[in-house]
Amino acid sequence: MLGTLSVIGIGPGDPELLTLKAARIIKESKVLCVPKGREEGSSLALSIVKKAVSIDGKEIIEAHFPMKKTRTNKLAADSDLDDKWNETVEVILGKLRKGIDLAFLTLGDPAVYSTFFYLYDKLLELHPELNIEIIPGVSSVNASAARAGISLGLGNDRIAVLPANYMDNLKTTLEAFDTVVLMKVNKVFNEVASMLAGMKLVENSVCISRAGMEDEKIFKDIRTVRQEELNYFSMVIVRK
Amino acid sequence: MLGTLSVIGIGPGDPELLTLKAARIIKESKVLCVPKGREEGSSLALSIVKKAVSIDGKEIIEAHFPMKKTRTNKLAADSDLDDKWNETVEVILGKLRKGIDLAFLTLGDPAVYSTFFYLYDKLLELHPELNIEIIPGVSSVNASAARAGISLGLGNDRIAVLPANYMDNLKTTLEAFDTVVLMKVNKVFNEVASMLAGMKLVENSVCISRAGMEDEKIFKDIRTVRQEELNYFSMVIVRK
Repeated sequence: MLGTLSVIGIGPGDPELLTLKAARIIKESKVLCVPKGREEGSSLALSIVKKAVSIDGKEIIEAHFPMKKTRTNKLAADSDLDDKWNETVEVILGKLRKGIDLAFLTLGDPAVYSTFFYLYDKLLELHPELNIEIIPGVSSVNASAARAGISLGLGNDRIAVLPANYMDNLKTTLEAFDTVVLMKVNKVFNEVASMLAGMKLVENSVCISRAGMEDEKIFKDIRTVRQEELNYFSMVIVRK
Repeated sequence: MLGTLSVIGIGPGDPELLTLKAARIIKESKVLCVPKGREEGSSLALSIVKKAVSIDGKEIIEAHFPMKKTRTNKLAADSDLDDKWNETVEVILGKLRKGIDLAFLTLGDPAVYSTFFYLYDKLLELHPELNIEIIPGVSSVNASAARAGISLGLGNDRIAVLPANYMDNLKTTLEAFDTVVLMKVNKVFNEVASMLAGMKLVENSVCISRAGMEDEKIFKDIRTVRQEELNYFSMVIVRK
């Protein structure tokens, strides 16, 4: 009998935003797996979970999740990246083959830009019968909207979520959608801000950094934001 | 001292998808408020919560949330709808003015199409000093993706969320975005399906009905869906 792999969204940072299900499965799991070498390292996911559930005595696996890998370069078969991915796959399968259940922790919600899904395809390719349960979590998008006191959409509103690391169609999207969420805005904030100013959308914008974490910042006036103060967990929500 | 109004996302249906914070605040609240006259009535929100937290002895307020009200018709001041909204505002303020904390329950996440936000503006207009805390929850969008085992976005992917009750720009959006989530697809499913067929996106689509609820259905092949079997809590996720 193969063990079950539970992929658990632990929410955006506030330990109380773990779901009851996340807390229960983590409590029941003897082995936790966290991605290594991600922004802020794996310590962030564990430090959040630790405040809600005791992890004493559990085995912690830090798995390599190379950043650059995407589904579209699947064919770059013998690269360094692929070696690291295979290593991670083997570590996880090693446990599951022994019948050990494994809880894989992801920040926010697994479906929203979590690199776990690169692994998911690979695991199912090797073991189509594998039991993988995905436990949704509170996404940083929803948490940021809550902290800023704004709705992402009402009635017939159209919502767009963009990674914000390319500016190509931003203007068109801002024109066509009622709400535009610009994730990971830290590297392009100044460009974004000047586009929003040009489109007279400054009053409709709010910048949220590290929603729900202890050092959360909310800028209701985005003109007060300095790009160099932002980090990976920053987003701008434009609400028309 | 005014009481605190906590607006609580209770998740999409599975009682275990309540957050620890939602469960705690509901436990601590003497008064729960649920919207009345919504799809499936207020009983749905209460029946979900009941399975996770005892609500014995709590006062339950069923507040009117007229469906058609939108921010843009604010000026229709003396309509029946406005009377009902004012009634709801008064019931809520009545409790808060007595210093009683109130937990307002919303399905999914409050920021995602919850009518609470119509009320939010009105409450803050009357009482700018009001303490309103919004507790984010697991949105049905994230839960549906988890249940279907698909990612909403990876890397630089662009995600669009549409209410799906108008077809106007659907083709353009399907062309421009990597993932398109069509909410409340029940009334337009056949139109959507034939557009997806025309765009050769049938293989990229999955239909999820009532994710996380006891009668959840997942259609990996959308050609097997019959529109009349779908209800309000149905969505199609198109993932290119």
